[in-house]
Amino acid sequence: MKIIITTPRDMQSWSRQRLAAGERIACVPTMGYLHEGHLSLVRRARAAADRVVLTLFVNPTQFGPGEDYAVYPRDPARDQALCEAEGVDVLFMPAAADMYAPDASTAVVEEALSRRLCGASRPGHFRGVCTVVAKLFNCVRPDVAVFGQKDAQQALVIRRMVRDLDFPVEIVVAPIVREPDGLAKSSRNVRLSPAERAAALGLSRALGLAREALARGERDADAVRRRLERELAASGLRTDYVEIVDTRTLEPAPLLAPGVLVALAAFAGRTRLIDNCEL
Amino acid sequence: MKIIITTPRDMQSWSRQRLAAGERIACVPTMGYLHEGHLSLVRRARAAADRVVLTLFVNPTQFGPGEDYAVYPRDPARDQALCEAEGVDVLFMPAAADMYAPDASTAVVEEALSRRLCGASRPGHFRGVCTVVAKLFNCVRPDVAVFGQKDAQQALVIRRMVRDLDFPVEIVVAPIVREPDGLAKSSRNVRLSPAERAAALGLSRALGLAREALARGERDADAVRRRLERELAASGLRTDYVEIVDTRTLEPAPLLAPGVLVALAAFAGRTRLIDNCEL
Repeated sequence: MKIIITTPRDMQSWSRQRLAAGERIACVPTMGYLHEGHLSLVRRARAAADRVVLTLFVNPTQFGPGEDYAVYPRDPARDQALCEAEGVDVLFMPAAADMYAPDASTAVVEEALSRRLCGASRPGHFRGVCTVVAKLFNCVRPDVAVFGQKDAQQALVIRRMVRDLDFPVEIVVAPIVREPDGLAKSSRNVRLSPAERAAALGLSRALGLAREALARGERDADAVRRRLERELAASGLRTDYVEIVDTRTLEPAPLLAPGVLVALAAFAGRTRLIDNCEL
Repeated sequence: MKIIITTPRDMQSWSRQRLAAGERIACVPTMGYLHEGHLSLVRRARAAADRVVLTLFVNPTQFGPGEDYAVYPRDPARDQALCEAEGVDVLFMPAAADMYAPDASTAVVEEALSRRLCGASRPGHFRGVCTVVAKLFNCVRPDVAVFGQKDAQQALVIRRMVRDLDFPVEIVVAPIVREPDGLAKSSRNVRLSPAERAAALGLSRALGLAREALARGERDADAVRRRLERELAASGLRTDYVEIVDTRTLEPAPLLAPGVLVALAAFAGRTRLIDNCEL
């Protein structure tokens, strides 16, 4: 990789110069521990702009008190090598102390889409996400930013924030990348024991059941929801939520129909995993 | 004036092109009904950048239910002429419907400095201000933005927001411009009856008393505060608040000392006026 930048100010100077040179900037926000899912976002970003900035920041404010901030997987040296191999122009990896002043008192809040699904399970999570993404956008000043469909609700919340606050950023959402056996790629997968790794397949299996139910004409979303919950439990997972919702509003969909979003969150041991598909 | 722009999207295209041409943009956010105070901000802006954008938007979300949104003075034709005379490059005057989607659900909140002074009297005011200024910054993409010291708390809150969210914008605060008799220039002054106009002088007179108190060695901030309240009442004003506070934190200052901020808000009839000075 060409440049590593570690402070918001340096990131802003770099971007201001690139903008003044008439270049288009793409941003891929990540929490690092990069996998093939992230790299697919980098490729989308490269196709959309002259310069690609990958941000690597494990954002403390989007983790709740009992959550896995301290043990979230980190390997910046490996991330740097992967960025270099993918032709990333800038790796922006600020320290938390350079991102948050001790007396920081400003936040970006999204108060409709954020209330449901992961927002209901993780109070404050999307406040942390919106705030840090706004900050990263103001540092990187991208024309386009690429997010993963794996975090479907996050992508919707960010799109809403961008629309409501007029961020001059096009949001691209790239498809989920899966392991050969169906498990959605996630930095957290590395924390799974072999038994938990096997149980984790319950998530993609449950999504398969939803697709089959639609294919055979099942319409009762609540019945399907309960069927998926049983599948997660039978796989050895502890369900956080199983939701069948409108793809745009995240309101519960009464009928299983093409276009609805099936979204799952469950714990394999102490590791919380999410997955989703649009039917 | 060279250009009038009315939609966020058109504003963004203009700014994106100016940035790509390597130009510096200055922004002067206003609610219109321009007076000499605003024009002094335009001159500061012109000195700081290649292009000056004046935004004219009476932002509904920063007015409370019982406040004066409906009767806030408006005269866009006169404002255009004044902008033209001052060499403003772009007058950005969006309609409220182009600024706020019916299902808008995102806001910028500042939760420390906003709680005091005007924030205590006007719940939600600074949430509206922060949100609209963030939006205007994202439309205009200024390198520098100029605010008036008349709205001292607003300037502090905006500086805090800019710092906390990493907006790549330098904030300049320009001094209060006053009428010959001392009344701070305000768009709302036009709403004052002759008797209210006379009463309104109580504000600048009270600030004078604070300066005199400091000069003669008075140190008890609370005693001075009460003295100023009496002055406002004697002038025929209804006090909203009289505060003597730390200039950076807005916390009450126990001692009258050089550098503290004396901030006043009072009603002349139904019109709420503010004024302040740093001792």
